Amino acid sequence: MIRLVDRNAAILIIGNEILTGKIQDENTPFLARELFSLGIRLERVIVCPDDIDTIARDLRELRTSHDVVFTSGGVGPTHDDLTLDAVAKSFDTPIARSGEMEALIRAHFGERTTEDHLRMALMPVGARLVHGFDVAWPTVAIENVYVLPGVPEILRRKFSVIRKELDRGETFFSEAVFTLADEGEIAGILHELTRAFPALVIGSYPKMPGAADHRVKVTFDGKDEADVSAAAEAFVTKLPREKFLRRERVI
Amino acid sequence: MIRLVDRNAAILIIGNEILTGKIQDENTPFLARELFSLGIRLERVIVCPDDIDTIARDLRELRTSHDVVFTSGGVGPTHDDLTLDAVAKSFDTPIARSGEMEALIRAHFGERTTEDHLRMALMPVGARLVHGFDVAWPTVAIENVYVLPGVPEILRRKFSVIRKELDRGETFFSEAVFTLADEGEIAGILHELTRAFPALVIGSYPKMPGAADHRVKVTFDGKDEADVSAAAEAFVTKLPREKFLRRERVI
Repeated sequence: MIRLVDRNAAILIIGNEILTGKIQDENTPFLARELFSLGIRLERVIVCPDDIDTIARDLRELRTSHDVVFTSGGVGPTHDDLTLDAVAKSFDTPIARSGEMEALIRAHFGERTTEDHLRMALMPVGARLVHGFDVAWPTVAIENVYVLPGVPEILRRKFSVIRKELDRGETFFSEAVFTLADEGEIAGILHELTRAFPALVIGSYPKMPGAADHRVKVTFDGKDEADVSAAAEAFVTKLPREKFLRRERVI
Repeated sequence: MIRLVDRNAAILIIGNEILTGKIQDENTPFLARELFSLGIRLERVIVCPDDIDTIARDLRELRTSHDVVFTSGGVGPTHDDLTLDAVAKSFDTPIARSGEMEALIRAHFGERTTEDHLRMALMPVGARLVHGFDVAWPTVAIENVYVLPGVPEILRRKFSVIRKELDRGETFFSEAVFTLADEGEIAGILHELTRAFPALVIGSYPKMPGAADHRVKVTFDGKDEADVSAAAEAFVTKLPREKFLRRERVI
């Protein structure tokens, strides 16, 4: 079996509105699930303020240490929309008006087009536009960085196009076992299993008494379906029978 | 008027379960709102995997560049609970069993106490325990770092105690104006206002058509209530009357 080198990913959320608690970030959970289903390991999420130097510094670090990077937010025409300038800065490239984007903006806004609307045609030199049938606006991408909007509905539509670029037919598999044990009781078993199944990621998640029917949920993630299944089976076997609740295939 | 120096804060979320999209992070929105109401500027959130070196490296960077830092997750007794070891590493201090914590654990689990339960008594040398009436377990804190659990219900209870330590009677004020304008139409006005009110943070948040009654929500945040109010008033005055929907005091 040829094992492809795992791809990893990072997300940079640009958002004062998230840091001040005004809006809950829906884009990270969405992208996390999508990347998991594409077999891409999401390794890092940073939420930073609308500050050009911070965005540029964070993006430079993320893009040089990850295979794929997504930014979300800060791409409109107002004073707090600094992402494209910051992307250019992080690539040491100037920003210039894209004729292709200008034409799309003029076609959309017609006579109402303002100079501020046209600011949205500014792109880092070297960037490309990712087009799709079902999205009005293309996505700006440069090397391994996709520049996505903060509005969740638009981000999702745009991601459906990007997904096709990223899909290599890989995925992660995941199983969950729900138990009535507390973490202290199963820590030893889990420790053994991490040694027996080194390619898997095993997680243990306690719940508050009363908040769920189970006390601890144990998850087994990996790219080899048989391995994931064998680990979940081994755990159920080692668990005292009265502590076992149920086993679920997640993906 | 004496202006206190603003305090800033950062959050480190330790969570494979969030990076794989299994669980949505509820702790960041909660802490973000609490910090805003305490007048503490949340400047950075990082979500990292359950890896000791990554956690230690991130925490070292965050604790040296922020006044207050919270970690969330990874504090139970299982193989993936590495946070306290990582905290010790980030402070270059060893980890040792706390007699106070050991006594609490033995009192709670009684004869069922395992060596794995007692792992939860390991603390970085130099850490202190923050106690409260309404929480069963104290919170581990070291210098400016509070080590919180991942389970939201427990985190909230523990934070209610920490809140008292952090409260200096400060807060941020915030007003929101809901408009029917698109961002291109109001970008000029907002640009002016950012210059007229340099102490405020002004945000502009578009909505999808159909997803809300408004098109763009504009927010004004700051520590001076009169300043926040004056900026919102100035914006409403400059906005074409037919584009104005409503104005709300958020906090």
